Amino acid sequence: MVDNAESNTGPQASPPALLEAPGFLVRRLYQAYVSAWVRGVDSSLTGPQFAVLTAVGARPGRDQRSMASAVSLDTSTMTDIVRRMEKRGLISRQTPVTDARRKLLYLTPEGESMLEHANRLARQLDERLLRPYGALERDELITTLTQLADHWETVPQEF
Amino acid sequence: MVDNAESNTGPQASPPALLEAPGFLVRRLYQAYVSAWVRGVDSSLTGPQFAVLTAVGARPGRDQRSMASAVSLDTSTMTDIVRRMEKRGLISRQTPVTDARRKLLYLTPEGESMLEHANRLARQLDERLLRPYGALERDELITTLTQLADHWETVPQEF
Repeated sequence: MVDNAESNTGPQASPPALLEAPGFLVRRLYQAYVSAWVRGVDSSLTGPQFAVLTAVGARPGRDQRSMASAVSLDTSTMTDIVRRMEKRGLISRQTPVTDARRKLLYLTPEGESMLEHANRLARQLDERLLRPYGALERDELITTLTQLADHWETVPQEF
Repeated sequence: MVDNAESNTGPQASPPALLEAPGFLVRRLYQAYVSAWVRGVDSSLTGPQFAVLTAVGARPGRDQRSMASAVSLDTSTMTDIVRRMEKRGLISRQTPVTDARRKLLYLTPEGESMLEHANRLARQLDERLLRPYGALERDELITTLTQLADHWETVPQEF
């Protein structure tokens, strides 16, 4: 029993019910991605923070609420992330004179450099993550993951 | 500008670079899964805790270290999870007389009932997550995700 347990480590010894559970597989993927991100891109910038930088860089002056939706973050997580990044001098928030309740987001020059830096490393990471796949397979994989995510985002509302 | 920003909310308005980034897609999947789990399975039991219950139920008496590996958790996260579940009376840890450094894990009767309960709901959740897919497509999807996770788990070691 002891020998058997010791020789049988590693993912291949996972219980079969887990191995085929889509959520377990997605947790493995997410954990591996976070770990690769911290080592390969920037340990001071999380994936969601990078997504916010990217979204603000792509559409400066958009308001915080619609920016949150664009990067699939709930509004309280978004508020927390924007506050941290404002404190670090990466993002500035401006309130339009016409509507004091809205917050429009812009990158600071430091935010722009950080985005450029992280973007280069993130693209290199994507390249590593997709290395075993040819161009056509990559398209198929991205399509598969996108369709799956579109569906999964409707499932919590079923309960 | 204001109208444009307001009419252009939702995931379809995400920056193109993010939309095609595999890590961004996996974060969307993981977030949706965690949200569905909390509502549809058990908000007092996380996915990783369920994975540990499943693994201990499948191989009672295995030691904590190889159990961690079987469920793709690092040893410090595993230690934390096992401690919480022992406190809740779901798992018992026993030290073999032959080797005081090892901790062998078992389910308590309460742990067995909890596993049975969560397992039934988790299988129903899997069914919802895979609903749009036929039997063959499900096999392909699980194979695709498994191969991707096997590859991604090697990427952090490249840095």
